[in-house]
Amino acid sequence: MLAALAARRRRVQVVLVKSDLAADKAADLLTAAEAAGVPVRRVAGGELSAMVHGASHGGVVAVCGPMPRTTPDELLDLVAAASGPPLLLMLEGVDDARNLGFTLRTAHAVGVTAVLIKKHLWDFDETEVARAASGALEHIPLVQFESIDLLRQLQKKGLRLYGCLAGVRRSLFRTRLDRPVILAIGGEKRGLSGAVRNICDRFITIPSLADASSLSLSHAGAIVLGEALRQRTRPRVRR
Amino acid sequence: MLAALAARRRRVQVVLVKSDLAADKAADLLTAAEAAGVPVRRVAGGELSAMVHGASHGGVVAVCGPMPRTTPDELLDLVAAASGPPLLLMLEGVDDARNLGFTLRTAHAVGVTAVLIKKHLWDFDETEVARAASGALEHIPLVQFESIDLLRQLQKKGLRLYGCLAGVRRSLFRTRLDRPVILAIGGEKRGLSGAVRNICDRFITIPSLADASSLSLSHAGAIVLGEALRQRTRPRVRR
Repeated sequence: MLAALAARRRRVQVVLVKSDLAADKAADLLTAAEAAGVPVRRVAGGELSAMVHGASHGGVVAVCGPMPRTTPDELLDLVAAASGPPLLLMLEGVDDARNLGFTLRTAHAVGVTAVLIKKHLWDFDETEVARAASGALEHIPLVQFESIDLLRQLQKKGLRLYGCLAGVRRSLFRTRLDRPVILAIGGEKRGLSGAVRNICDRFITIPSLADASSLSLSHAGAIVLGEALRQRTRPRVRR
Repeated sequence: MLAALAARRRRVQVVLVKSDLAADKAADLLTAAEAAGVPVRRVAGGELSAMVHGASHGGVVAVCGPMPRTTPDELLDLVAAASGPPLLLMLEGVDDARNLGFTLRTAHAVGVTAVLIKKHLWDFDETEVARAASGALEHIPLVQFESIDLLRQLQKKGLRLYGCLAGVRRSLFRTRLDRPVILAIGGEKRGLSGAVRNICDRFITIPSLADASSLSLSHAGAIVLGEALRQRTRPRVRR
Protein backbone atom coordinates (compact mmCIF):
# COMPACT_ATOMS: atom_id res chain seq x y z
CA MET A 1 0.00 0.00 0.00
CA LEU A 2 2.92 2.27 0.76
CA ALA A 3 4.25 1.44 -2.69
CA ALA A 4 0.88 2.31 -4.26
CA LEU A 5 0.78 5.66 -2.49
CA ALA A 6 4.40 6.44 -3.35
CA ALA A 7 4.26 5.36 -7.01
CA ARG A 8 1.03 7.34 -7.62
CA ARG A 9 0.09 5.33 -10.67
CA ARG A 10 -3.24 4.06 -9.40
CA ARG A 11 -6.04 6.22 -8.19
CA VAL A 12 -6.38 5.79 -4.41
CA GLN A 13 -9.78 7.09 -3.28
CA VAL A 14 -9.41 6.76 0.46
CA VAL A 15 -7.37 5.02 3.16
CA LEU A 16 -9.48 3.39 5.88
CA VAL A 17 -7.91 2.83 9.29
CA LYS A 18 -9.36 0.66 12.05
CA SER A 19 -10.69 3.05 14.69
CA ASP A 20 -8.71 1.56 17.58
CA LEU A 21 -5.40 1.10 15.73
CA ALA A 22 -2.52 2.76 17.58
CA ALA A 23 -1.35 5.82 15.64
CA ASP A 24 2.28 4.66 15.49
CA LYS A 25 1.29 1.38 13.75
CA ALA A 26 0.26 3.25 10.63
CA ALA A 27 2.44 6.36 10.85
CA ASP A 28 4.30 5.74 7.56
CA LEU A 29 1.06 5.12 5.74
CA LEU A 30 -0.67 8.18 7.11
CA THR A 31 2.29 10.33 6.13
CA ALA A 32 2.30 8.84 2.62
CA ALA A 33 -1.46 9.31 2.28
CA GLU A 34 -1.17 12.95 3.31
CA ALA A 35 1.70 13.52 0.87
CA ALA A 36 -0.41 12.00 -1.91
CA GLY A 37 -3.49 14.05 -0.97
CA VAL A 38 -5.53 10.94 -0.15
CA PRO A 39 -8.14 11.30 2.59
CA VAL A 40 -7.94 9.03 5.64
CA ARG A 41 -11.05 7.80 7.50
CA ARG A 42 -11.30 5.89 10.78
CA VAL A 43 -13.78 2.99 10.67
CA ALA A 44 -14.85 0.15 12.97
CA GLY A 45 -12.81 -3.07 12.69
CA GLY A 46 -15.86 -5.12 11.72
CA GLU A 47 -16.54 -2.85 8.78
CA LEU A 48 -12.98 -3.25 7.52
CA SER A 49 -13.05 -7.03 7.78
CA ALA A 50 -16.30 -7.13 5.83
CA MET A 51 -14.62 -5.30 2.94
CA VAL A 52 -11.59 -7.52 2.68
CA HIS A 53 -11.51 -11.17 1.75
CA GLY A 54 -8.44 -13.34 1.86
CA ALA A 55 -5.45 -12.41 3.96
CA SER A 56 -5.54 -10.10 6.93
CA HIS A 57 -5.59 -6.34 6.53
CA GLY A 58 -3.60 -5.33 9.60
CA GLY A 59 -6.09 -2.59 10.40
CA VAL A 60 -5.56 -0.54 7.24
CA VAL A 61 -7.24 -0.76 3.84
CA ALA A 62 -6.76 1.45 0.78
CA VAL A 63 -9.72 1.74 -1.56
CA CYS A 64 -8.21 2.12 -4.98
CA GLY A 65 -8.78 1.59 -8.66
CA PRO A 66 -7.05 -1.17 -10.61
CA MET A 67 -3.44 -0.76 -11.62
CA PRO A 68 -3.47 1.03 -14.96
CA ARG A 69 -1.69 -0.87 -17.76
CA THR A 70 1.03 0.57 -19.90
CA THR A 71 -0.25 0.84 -23.48
CA PRO A 72 1.82 -0.28 -26.49
CA ASP A 73 2.36 3.37 -27.44
CA GLU A 74 3.56 4.22 -23.97
CA LEU A 75 5.87 1.22 -24.13
CA LEU A 76 7.47 2.46 -27.33
CA ASP A 77 8.01 5.83 -25.64
CA LEU A 78 9.54 4.14 -22.59
CA VAL A 79 11.91 2.15 -24.77
CA ALA A 80 12.95 5.28 -26.64
CA ALA A 81 13.52 7.17 -23.40
CA ALA A 82 15.40 4.41 -21.54
CA SER A 83 18.69 5.60 -20.11
CA GLY A 84 20.49 2.32 -20.82
CA PRO A 85 19.80 -0.50 -23.29
CA PRO A 86 16.15 -1.50 -22.71
CA LEU A 87 15.46 -4.92 -21.20
CA LEU A 88 11.96 -6.33 -21.75
CA LEU A 89 10.53 -9.54 -20.38
CA MET A 90 7.76 -11.31 -22.29
CA LEU A 91 5.94 -14.10 -20.48
CA GLU A 92 3.76 -16.60 -22.29
CA GLY A 93 2.88 -19.33 -19.83
CA VAL A 94 2.73 -18.16 -16.25
CA ASP A 95 0.75 -20.72 -14.32
CA ASP A 96 -0.47 -18.77 -11.35
CA ALA A 97 -0.83 -15.41 -9.71
CA ARG A 98 1.83 -15.92 -7.06
CA ASN A 99 4.51 -17.01 -9.50
CA LEU A 100 3.66 -14.02 -11.67
CA GLY A 101 3.95 -11.75 -8.64
CA PHE A 102 7.37 -13.17 -7.70
CA THR A 103 8.52 -12.73 -11.28
CA LEU A 104 7.36 -9.09 -11.42
CA ARG A 105 9.23 -8.48 -8.19
CA THR A 106 12.45 -9.95 -9.57
CA ALA A 107 11.98 -8.09 -12.87
CA HIS A 108 11.68 -4.84 -10.96
CA ALA A 109 14.72 -5.62 -8.79
CA VAL A 110 16.96 -6.27 -11.79
CA GLY A 111 15.79 -3.14 -13.61
CA VAL A 112 13.57 -4.57 -16.34
CA THR A 113 12.07 -1.75 -18.45
CA ALA A 114 8.65 -3.43 -18.86
CA VAL A 115 6.93 -6.81 -18.71
CA LEU A 116 4.74 -7.95 -21.61
CA ILE A 117 1.92 -10.49 -21.42
CA LYS A 118 -0.59 -11.27 -24.16
CA LYS A 119 -4.01 -10.02 -23.23
CA HIS A 120 -5.79 -13.35 -23.67
CA LEU A 121 -3.26 -15.04 -21.36
CA TRP A 122 -4.08 -12.73 -18.47
CA ASP A 123 -6.34 -14.56 -16.07
CA PHE A 124 -5.09 -13.68 -12.62
CA ASP A 125 -6.45 -12.43 -9.33
CA GLU A 126 -4.71 -9.08 -9.29
CA THR A 127 -4.76 -8.86 -5.50
CA GLU A 128 -2.78 -12.09 -5.29
CA VAL A 129 -0.34 -10.89 -7.93
CA ALA A 130 0.17 -7.64 -6.02
CA ARG A 131 0.74 -9.45 -2.74
CA ALA A 132 3.46 -11.74 -4.13
CA ALA A 133 4.97 -8.83 -6.06
CA SER A 134 5.40 -7.01 -2.75
CA GLY A 135 5.11 -3.50 -4.18
CA ALA A 136 6.69 -4.19 -7.57
CA LEU A 137 3.32 -4.18 -9.37
CA GLU A 138 3.02 -0.49 -8.54
CA HIS A 139 6.33 0.30 -10.21
CA ILE A 140 7.00 -1.94 -13.14
CA PRO A 141 5.30 -1.08 -16.43
CA LEU A 142 3.04 -3.99 -17.41
CA VAL A 143 1.81 -4.23 -20.98
CA GLN A 144 -1.06 -6.48 -22.07
CA PHE A 145 -0.86 -6.68 -25.83
CA GLU A 146 -3.09 -8.22 -28.46
CA SER A 147 -0.83 -9.27 -31.30
CA ILE A 148 2.82 -9.97 -31.99
CA ASP A 149 2.90 -6.87 -34.20
CA LEU A 150 4.06 -5.09 -31.07
CA LEU A 151 7.08 -7.39 -30.87
CA ARG A 152 7.87 -6.67 -34.51
CA GLN A 153 7.65 -2.94 -33.86
CA LEU A 154 10.10 -3.32 -30.99
CA GLN A 155 12.42 -5.32 -33.22
CA LYS A 156 12.32 -2.46 -35.75
CA LYS A 157 13.43 -0.16 -32.93
CA GLY A 158 16.55 -2.27 -32.52
CA LEU A 159 15.54 -4.72 -29.78
CA ARG A 160 16.41 -8.35 -30.36
CA LEU A 161 13.92 -11.02 -29.41
CA TYR A 162 15.52 -13.97 -27.62
CA GLY A 163 13.35 -17.01 -26.97
CA CYS A 164 14.30 -19.20 -24.02
CA LEU A 165 13.90 -22.87 -24.88
CA ALA A 166 15.11 -26.09 -23.31
CA GLY A 167 17.73 -28.02 -25.19
CA VAL A 168 18.87 -25.53 -27.82
CA ARG A 169 22.58 -25.17 -28.36
CA ARG A 170 23.36 -21.59 -27.38
CA SER A 171 23.83 -21.05 -23.66
CA LEU A 172 22.26 -18.12 -21.88
CA PHE A 173 25.66 -17.54 -20.35
CA ARG A 174 27.31 -17.04 -23.76
CA THR A 175 24.74 -14.51 -24.94
CA ARG A 176 25.10 -10.74 -24.65
CA LEU A 177 22.16 -9.46 -22.65
CA ASP A 178 23.54 -5.98 -22.06
CA ARG A 179 22.17 -4.80 -25.40
CA PRO A 180 18.54 -3.91 -26.15
CA VAL A 181 16.69 -7.22 -25.77
CA ILE A 182 13.31 -8.80 -25.24
CA LEU A 183 13.60 -12.05 -23.28
CA ALA A 184 10.68 -14.35 -24.12
CA ILE A 185 9.87 -17.17 -21.73
CA GLY A 186 7.19 -19.79 -22.32
CA GLY A 187 5.26 -21.99 -19.95
CA GLU A 188 6.37 -25.34 -18.63
CA LYS A 189 3.77 -27.29 -20.51
CA ARG A 190 3.72 -25.78 -23.97
CA GLY A 191 6.78 -23.54 -24.09
CA LEU A 192 6.74 -20.53 -26.38
CA SER A 193 3.96 -20.31 -28.95
CA GLY A 194 4.72 -20.92 -32.59
CA ALA A 195 3.81 -17.32 -33.44
CA VAL A 196 6.51 -16.01 -31.11
CA ARG A 197 9.09 -18.63 -32.07
CA ASN A 198 8.67 -17.69 -35.72
CA ILE A 199 9.93 -14.17 -35.14
CA CYS A 200 12.65 -14.83 -32.54
CA ASP A 201 16.09 -13.54 -33.51
CA ARG A 202 17.75 -16.27 -31.49
CA PHE A 203 17.03 -19.10 -29.06
CA ILE A 204 18.91 -19.51 -25.82
CA THR A 205 18.90 -22.12 -23.08
CA ILE A 206 19.88 -22.56 -19.46
CA PRO A 207 22.46 -25.35 -19.62
CA SER A 208 21.45 -27.56 -16.71
CA LEU A 209 23.83 -30.16 -15.39
CA ALA A 210 21.97 -33.06 -13.87
CA ASP A 211 19.56 -35.51 -15.42
CA ALA A 212 17.11 -32.87 -14.31
CA SER A 213 13.58 -32.18 -15.22
CA SER A 214 13.24 -28.69 -16.61
CA LEU A 215 13.17 -25.70 -14.31
CA SER A 216 9.92 -24.10 -13.22
CA LEU A 217 8.97 -21.13 -15.39
CA SER A 218 9.33 -18.76 -12.51
CA HIS A 219 12.82 -19.99 -11.58
CA ALA A 220 13.92 -20.09 -15.21
CA GLY A 221 12.85 -16.44 -15.40
CA ALA A 222 14.81 -15.61 -12.24
CA ILE A 223 17.99 -17.23 -13.61
CA VAL A 224 17.69 -15.48 -16.98
CA LEU A 225 17.05 -12.12 -15.30
CA GLY A 226 19.91 -12.76 -12.87
CA GLU A 227 22.29 -13.24 -15.79
CA ALA A 228 21.03 -10.03 -17.43
CA LEU A 229 21.65 -8.25 -14.12
CA ARG A 230 25.17 -9.67 -13.92
CA GLN A 231 26.04 -8.49 -17.40
CA ARG A 232 24.46 -5.09 -16.88
CA THR A 233 26.22 -4.40 -13.59
CA ARG A 234 29.71 -5.58 -14.48
CA PRO A 235 32.41 -3.00 -14.83
CA ARG A 236 32.60 -1.77 -18.42
CA VAL A 237 35.58 -3.22 -20.23
CA ARG A 238 36.25 -2.59 -23.90
CA ARG A 239 36.37 -5.86 -25.75
CA MET B 1 6.13 -41.34 -9.59
CA LEU B 2 8.33 -42.38 -12.48
CA ALA B 3 11.16 -40.53 -10.75
CA ALA B 4 10.48 -42.39 -7.50
CA LEU B 5 10.54 -45.76 -9.25
CA ALA B 6 13.66 -44.88 -11.21
CA ALA B 7 15.65 -43.35 -8.33
CA ARG B 8 14.84 -46.32 -6.03
CA ARG B 9 15.53 -44.38 -2.87
CA ARG B 10 12.10 -44.77 -1.32
CA ARG B 11 10.36 -48.03 -0.66
CA VAL B 12 7.43 -48.39 -3.08
CA GLN B 13 5.07 -51.10 -1.82
CA VAL B 14 2.63 -51.28 -4.69
CA VAL B 15 1.38 -49.34 -7.71
CA LEU B 16 -2.42 -49.14 -7.99
CA VAL B 17 -3.98 -48.59 -11.42
CA LYS B 18 -7.60 -47.68 -12.05
CA SER B 19 -9.26 -50.77 -13.47
CA ASP B 20 -10.55 -49.12 -16.64
CA LEU B 21 -7.43 -47.08 -17.44
CA ALA B 22 -6.23 -47.70 -20.99
CA ALA B 23 -2.98 -49.68 -20.89
CA ASP B 24 -1.08 -47.16 -23.03
CA LYS B 25 -1.82 -44.34 -20.57
CA ALA B 26 0.37 -45.93 -17.93
CA ALA B 27 2.81 -47.89 -20.08
CA ASP B 28 5.95 -46.06 -18.85
CA LEU B 29 4.91 -46.49 -15.26
CA LEU B 30 4.12 -50.17 -15.60
CA THR B 31 7.49 -50.78 -17.25
CA ALA B 32 9.28 -48.86 -14.49
CA ALA B 33 7.36 -50.73 -11.79
CA GLU B 34 8.28 -54.05 -13.33
CA ALA B 35 11.92 -53.04 -13.60
CA ALA B 36 11.90 -52.05 -9.93
CA GLY B 37 10.18 -55.27 -8.86
CA VAL B 38 7.12 -53.40 -7.56
CA PRO B 39 3.78 -55.23 -7.83
CA VAL B 40 0.94 -53.58 -9.80
CA ARG B 41 -2.73 -54.03 -8.85
CA ARG B 42 -5.86 -52.95 -10.70
CA VAL B 43 -8.49 -51.30 -8.48
CA ALA B 44 -11.83 -49.54 -8.95
CA GLY B 45 -11.67 -45.78 -9.58
CA GLY B 46 -13.71 -44.99 -6.48
CA GLU B 47 -11.26 -46.84 -4.28
CA LEU B 48 -8.36 -44.88 -5.75
CA SER B 49 -10.06 -41.51 -5.24
CA ALA B 50 -10.81 -42.37 -1.63
CA MET B 51 -7.09 -42.88 -0.96
CA VAL B 52 -5.90 -39.65 -2.47
CA HIS B 53 -6.66 -36.18 -1.23
CA GLY B 54 -5.71 -33.01 -3.00
CA ALA B 55 -4.91 -32.99 -6.68
CA SER B 56 -6.05 -35.60 -9.16
CA HIS B 57 -4.30 -38.95 -9.46
CA GLY B 58 -4.74 -39.55 -13.18
CA GLY B 59 -5.73 -43.15 -12.55
CA VAL B 60 -2.46 -44.28 -10.96
CA VAL B 61 -1.29 -44.20 -7.33
CA ALA B 62 1.96 -45.48 -5.84
CA VAL B 63 1.82 -46.54 -2.19
CA CYS B 64 5.24 -45.71 -0.84
CA GLY B 65 7.17 -44.85 2.29
CA PRO B 66 8.47 -41.35 2.97
CA MET B 67 11.56 -40.11 1.19
CA PRO B 68 14.52 -41.18 3.33
CA ARG B 69 16.75 -38.30 4.45
CA THR B 70 20.46 -38.16 3.91
CA THR B 71 22.20 -38.33 7.30
CA PRO B 72 25.06 -36.00 8.27
CA ASP B 73 27.51 -38.92 7.99
CA GLU B 74 26.24 -39.79 4.52
CA LEU B 75 26.59 -36.11 3.58
CA LEU B 76 30.25 -36.08 4.62
CA ASP B 77 30.79 -39.18 2.48
CA LEU B 78 29.00 -37.54 -0.47
CA VAL B 79 31.16 -34.44 -0.17
CA ALA B 80 34.32 -36.55 -0.04
CA ALA B 81 33.23 -38.56 -3.08
CA ALA B 82 32.04 -35.62 -5.23
CA SER B 83 33.60 -35.62 -8.68
CA GLY B 84 33.88 -31.81 -8.83
CA PRO B 85 33.99 -29.14 -6.12
CA PRO B 86 30.95 -29.79 -3.90
CA LEU B 87 28.13 -27.23 -3.94
CA LEU B 88 25.77 -27.28 -0.97
CA LEU B 89 22.66 -25.17 -0.45
CA MET B 90 21.54 -24.37 3.09
CA LEU B 91 18.07 -22.87 3.49
CA GLU B 92 16.93 -21.20 6.66
CA GLY B 93 13.65 -19.49 5.93
CA VAL B 94 11.60 -21.21 3.27
CA ASP B 95 8.05 -20.00 3.64
CA ASP B 96 6.05 -22.74 2.00
CA ALA B 97 6.06 -26.19 0.51
CA ARG B 98 5.74 -25.11 -3.11
CA ASN B 99 8.60 -22.65 -2.97
CA LEU B 100 10.73 -25.32 -1.32
CA GLY B 101 9.78 -27.76 -4.09
CA PHE B 102 10.70 -25.26 -6.84
CA THR B 103 13.99 -24.60 -5.11
CA LEU B 104 14.83 -28.31 -4.84
CA ARG B 105 14.06 -28.66 -8.53
CA THR B 106 16.40 -25.82 -9.45
CA ALA B 107 19.07 -27.13 -7.07
CA HIS B 108 18.90 -30.50 -8.78
CA ALA B 109 19.02 -28.95 -12.25
CA VAL B 110 22.18 -26.96 -11.51
CA GLY B 111 23.93 -29.96 -9.93
CA VAL B 112 23.82 -29.11 -6.23
CA THR B 113 25.43 -31.89 -4.17
CA ALA B 114 22.92 -31.68 -1.30
CA VAL B 115 20.39 -29.35 0.31
CA LEU B 116 20.54 -28.72 4.07
CA ILE B 117 17.64 -27.58 6.26
CA LYS B 118 17.64 -27.43 10.05
CA LYS B 119 15.39 -30.09 11.48
CA HIS B 120 13.24 -27.73 13.55
CA LEU B 121 12.57 -25.57 10.47
CA TRP B 122 11.03 -28.46 8.55
CA ASP B 123 7.28 -28.11 8.64
CA PHE B 124 6.07 -28.98 5.18
CA ASP B 125 3.50 -31.18 3.53
CA GLU B 126 5.89 -33.52 1.76
CA THR B 127 3.39 -34.36 -0.97
CA GLU B 128 3.20 -30.69 -1.92
CA VAL B 129 6.97 -30.35 -1.86
CA ALA B 130 7.31 -33.40 -4.11
CA ARG B 131 4.73 -32.08 -6.57
CA ALA B 132 6.44 -28.70 -7.01
CA ALA B 133 9.84 -30.40 -7.12
CA SER B 134 8.60 -32.41 -10.10
CA GLY B 135 10.78 -35.47 -9.46
CA ALA B 136 13.78 -33.66 -7.96
CA LEU B 137 12.89 -34.70 -4.40
CA GLU B 138 13.62 -38.29 -5.42
CA HIS B 139 17.11 -37.42 -6.58
CA ILE B 140 18.61 -34.63 -4.54
CA PRO B 141 20.12 -35.55 -1.17
CA LEU B 142 18.22 -33.66 1.52
CA VAL B 143 19.77 -33.34 4.98
CA GLN B 144 17.83 -32.27 8.06
CA PHE B 145 20.42 -31.40 10.66
CA GLU B 146 20.19 -30.48 14.32
CA SER B 147 23.09 -28.15 15.01
CA ILE B 148 25.56 -25.95 13.17
CA ASP B 149 28.32 -28.35 14.19
CA LEU B 150 27.64 -30.02 10.85
CA LEU B 151 28.45 -26.76 9.04
CA ARG B 152 31.69 -26.50 11.03
CA GLN B 153 32.60 -30.06 10.09
CA LEU B 154 32.04 -29.21 6.43
CA GLN B 155 34.19 -26.10 6.81
CA LYS B 156 36.97 -28.31 8.22
CA LYS B 157 36.69 -30.40 5.06
CA GLY B 158 37.51 -27.32 3.02
CA LEU B 159 34.05 -25.96 2.14
CA ARG B 160 33.54 -22.24 2.57
CA LEU B 161 30.28 -21.00 4.02
CA TYR B 162 28.90 -17.99 2.14
CA GLY B 163 25.90 -16.22 3.66
CA CYS B 164 23.62 -14.35 1.25
CA LEU B 165 22.48 -11.07 2.77
CA ALA B 166 20.89 -7.93 1.36
CA GLY B 167 23.01 -4.84 1.28
CA VAL B 168 26.50 -6.20 1.96
CA ARG B 169 29.31 -4.95 -0.20
CA ARG B 170 30.56 -8.02 -2.03
CA SER B 171 28.56 -8.94 -5.12
CA LEU B 172 27.55 -12.50 -5.84
CA PHE B 173 28.85 -11.91 -9.34
CA ARG B 174 32.37 -11.15 -8.06
CA THR B 175 32.60 -14.25 -5.92
CA ARG B 176 34.12 -17.56 -6.99
CA LEU B 177 31.45 -20.22 -6.65
CA ASP B 178 33.30 -22.89 -8.60
CA ARG B 179 35.17 -23.95 -5.47
CA PRO B 180 33.78 -26.10 -2.64
CA VAL B 181 31.08 -23.91 -1.10
CA ILE B 182 27.98 -23.93 1.05
CA LEU B 183 25.53 -21.21 0.00
CA ALA B 184 23.37 -20.16 2.95
CA ILE B 185 20.12 -18.33 2.23
CA GLY B 186 17.82 -16.96 4.91
CA GLY B 187 14.15 -16.12 4.88
CA GLU B 188 12.60 -12.86 3.73
CA LYS B 189 11.47 -11.85 7.17
CA ARG B 190 14.38 -12.67 9.43
CA GLY B 191 17.27 -13.42 7.08
CA LEU B 192 19.99 -15.78 8.26
CA SER B 193 20.06 -16.67 11.95
CA GLY B 194 22.76 -15.22 14.18
CA ALA B 195 24.20 -18.69 14.78
CA VAL B 196 24.83 -19.17 11.06
CA ARG B 197 26.04 -15.62 10.45
CA ASN B 198 28.61 -16.04 13.21
CA ILE B 199 30.41 -18.80 11.36
CA CYS B 200 30.09 -17.55 7.76
CA ASP B 201 33.39 -17.17 5.92
CA ARG B 202 31.97 -14.39 3.80
CA PHE B 203 28.75 -12.52 3.02
CA ILE B 204 27.57 -11.94 -0.51
CA THR B 205 24.67 -10.04 -2.03
CA ILE B 206 22.66 -9.85 -5.24
CA PRO B 207 23.27 -6.28 -6.39
CA SER B 208 19.80 -5.15 -7.44
CA LEU B 209 19.33 -2.08 -9.57
CA ALA B 210 16.01 -0.45 -8.90
CA ASP B 211 14.61 1.04 -5.73
CA ALA B 212 13.39 -2.48 -5.32
CA SER B 213 12.09 -4.37 -2.38
CA SER B 214 14.18 -7.45 -1.78
CA LEU B 215 13.75 -10.55 -3.90
CA SER B 216 11.65 -13.45 -2.76
CA LEU B 217 13.72 -16.17 -1.05
CA SER B 218 12.94 -18.64 -3.76
CA HIS B 219 13.99 -16.28 -6.60
CA ALA B 220 17.08 -15.15 -4.71
CA GLY B 221 17.99 -18.84 -4.44
CA ALA B 222 17.42 -19.32 -8.17
CA ILE B 223 19.66 -16.38 -9.06
CA VAL B 224 22.46 -17.52 -6.73
CA LEU B 225 22.27 -21.08 -8.06
CA GLY B 226 22.15 -19.76 -11.64
CA GLU B 227 25.41 -17.90 -11.05
CA ALA B 228 27.01 -21.03 -9.56
CA LEU B 229 25.86 -22.92 -12.66
CA ARG B 230 27.35 -20.27 -14.93
CA GLN B 231 30.70 -20.41 -13.21
CA ARG B 232 30.74 -24.19 -13.09
CA THR B 233 29.89 -24.66 -16.76
CA ARG B 234 32.17 -22.04 -18.26
CA PRO B 235 35.13 -23.20 -20.27
CA ARG B 236 38.19 -23.58 -18.05
CA VAL B 237 40.61 -20.73 -18.52
CA ARG B 238 43.77 -20.35 -16.47
CA ARG B 239 43.75 -17.03 -14.72
